[in-house]
Amino acid sequence: MKANDRLLRALKREPLDRPPLWLMRQAGRYLPEYRALRKEAKSFMTLCQTPDLAAEVSLQPLRRFDLDAAILFSDILTLPDAMGLGLSFKEGEGPQFAKTIRTLADVQALPVPDPEQKLKYVMQAVQLIQKELAGSLPLIGFAGSPWTVACYMIEGQGHKNFISARQMAYQAPEVLQALLDKLVEATHLYLSAQIAAGVDVVMLFDSWGGWLSPEHYQQFSLAAMNRIIALLKSDPLTAATPIILFSKGAGAFLESMSLSGADALGVDWTQSLSAARVRVGDRVCLQGNLDPALLLSSPEKVQAAMYALLDDWGPHPGLIANLGHGIEQTTPIENVSALVEALKSYSFTP
Amino acid sequence: MKANDRLLRALKREPLDRPPLWLMRQAGRYLPEYRALRKEAKSFMTLCQTPDLAAEVSLQPLRRFDLDAAILFSDILTLPDAMGLGLSFKEGEGPQFAKTIRTLADVQALPVPDPEQKLKYVMQAVQLIQKELAGSLPLIGFAGSPWTVACYMIEGQGHKNFISARQMAYQAPEVLQALLDKLVEATHLYLSAQIAAGVDVVMLFDSWGGWLSPEHYQQFSLAAMNRIIALLKSDPLTAATPIILFSKGAGAFLESMSLSGADALGVDWTQSLSAARVRVGDRVCLQGNLDPALLLSSPEKVQAAMYALLDDWGPHPGLIANLGHGIEQTTPIENVSALVEALKSYSFTP
Repeated sequence: MKANDRLLRALKREPLDRPPLWLMRQAGRYLPEYRALRKEAKSFMTLCQTPDLAAEVSLQPLRRFDLDAAILFSDILTLPDAMGLGLSFKEGEGPQFAKTIRTLADVQALPVPDPEQKLKYVMQAVQLIQKELAGSLPLIGFAGSPWTVACYMIEGQGHKNFISARQMAYQAPEVLQALLDKLVEATHLYLSAQIAAGVDVVMLFDSWGGWLSPEHYQQFSLAAMNRIIALLKSDPLTAATPIILFSKGAGAFLESMSLSGADALGVDWTQSLSAARVRVGDRVCLQGNLDPALLLSSPEKVQAAMYALLDDWGPHPGLIANLGHGIEQTTPIENVSALVEALKSYSFTP
Repeated sequence: MKANDRLLRALKREPLDRPPLWLMRQAGRYLPEYRALRKEAKSFMTLCQTPDLAAEVSLQPLRRFDLDAAILFSDILTLPDAMGLGLSFKEGEGPQFAKTIRTLADVQALPVPDPEQKLKYVMQAVQLIQKELAGSLPLIGFAGSPWTVACYMIEGQGHKNFISARQMAYQAPEVLQALLDKLVEATHLYLSAQIAAGVDVVMLFDSWGGWLSPEHYQQFSLAAMNRIIALLKSDPLTAATPIILFSKGAGAFLESMSLSGADALGVDWTQSLSAARVRVGDRVCLQGNLDPALLLSSPEKVQAAMYALLDDWGPHPGLIANLGHGIEQTTPIENVSALVEALKSYSFTP
């Protein structure tokens, strides 16, 4: 269906000439053309909410680099914004909500938005991107995990350790659970709408799952993601769309995550991919996991690290080459080129 | 030697009536009497550098809570301050150095300070605390791990992910290694001086080890800690002093850490202590690992969680009860009391 179907075939664990490669945050601030567009746009939210601009930003990295997937340019917090929390990004300060969620009444007052209305700009961007891609590459859509989105809704902004949300997990688990329940419903509708609009793969970003105890990770982070996956997999309209799940800093929980129903798991750079594969067996593909800090070194070092990753992985199917977290904004362009070239120049023995 | 020797006996894995308990950052901002003293003092550094005040702050939690150890009130960045980096703490902004370390020339220009001169205020605080303790409790001294201290010296301040230091690990590993070598020497002298001044136990805090790849953790974080431990254990003046090693977020590396020569390992709250014990066997004691967010809930929940930890641990020696990270500044006093009382009221079957 796609001229380049490496990602979709890797997600089915089919044999390939080489693994697909894409980069978390590949559409973003390390690109001068992104920074130019961002400067013109009034705000970060303007970029997200203007379909033409979001589509343009999504396509920018593909004009420079021979990557194997596009990913929608958006933000995990557009969903709570659509639930009425009033999202803004102050320059250099990160996200800020006008409202926070602290009580059961706060949760009960939250609407579950119809994504075709409140997040129509996302669906329009998806359609524009797919028109431009014209079948060349698959497009990845995404949402934040309910736990991670809840962290921001409870805190009202970014935080070094999201202590308010973690406190709620102990002090008022019923409020947190009600919020997660609502986010499961809203996230399921949101991802279903992205799939209806045309994305080929969806990814759940659980940036803050790794800050929970094992019990709380299962109860509050993974359980909610499991429910979203089950809802998507049980609906004929969304069942065929592969799902990638990424809980950053949660390498200890890979076995549980591999039973989630997701097709692939993201792995951060704090463990080896081959060791992770031994733990999850052939139940899922693995995506990752070069250190974003590596891309701040030199083309030679980037090439050596990519070769080492591929040597370590060996001739197994089911690898999606990526970073272990989002690309850093100070990443030199030539190091990204070196990463792409390294994968292409590696000698894959059949 | 101490009226309450539970901590020292736990570190030898001897059988005890109950495990010892102390809390990371037990001397600090959650205590109103600390906040009052901090308000009087001109700055955080004044508290650290005035032996009377540092001693007073160290003793404050012991007047409220029946804890099994005192810990020196200080900061891991006093050592690089003594190396000439010019440390200050701006209100609400965290640490800031006047200089940063980026080149081999920067590293070579760094002195290895004589702690008896440049950090004399720490040794005087230790002596004052020991005088007040009068043999009642053991006193824990500490230092930052070379990697963690290097993170701040390279970045020049706190940072959400210390990307500059992680970049140096890839781009200029010889500069990082030279800095770590110097910090190994300086930290060894510093901890030796603390032991000479009277501390009974020393702890290495590796707050940022968990942000490294497995190879870099071994090469840059653990190797430097191993060398400090070997130096301390090979000198008759320091060999008998137990060493606790804590790499936050580095639960994946516990097996390697257990071969470091440390007597005990800190464990954060993202894994169960009993699972950690299975991995390290009887080579080391384990310290931890309640979630600091738990202490923001209620006395009943704190008690239940302490009981659950003790149930899970079972009748094994070598447990040092603690949090899995520093106590949060918004922690209610009554929850700390509940934690102490829970340990004392737990029914330990012989």
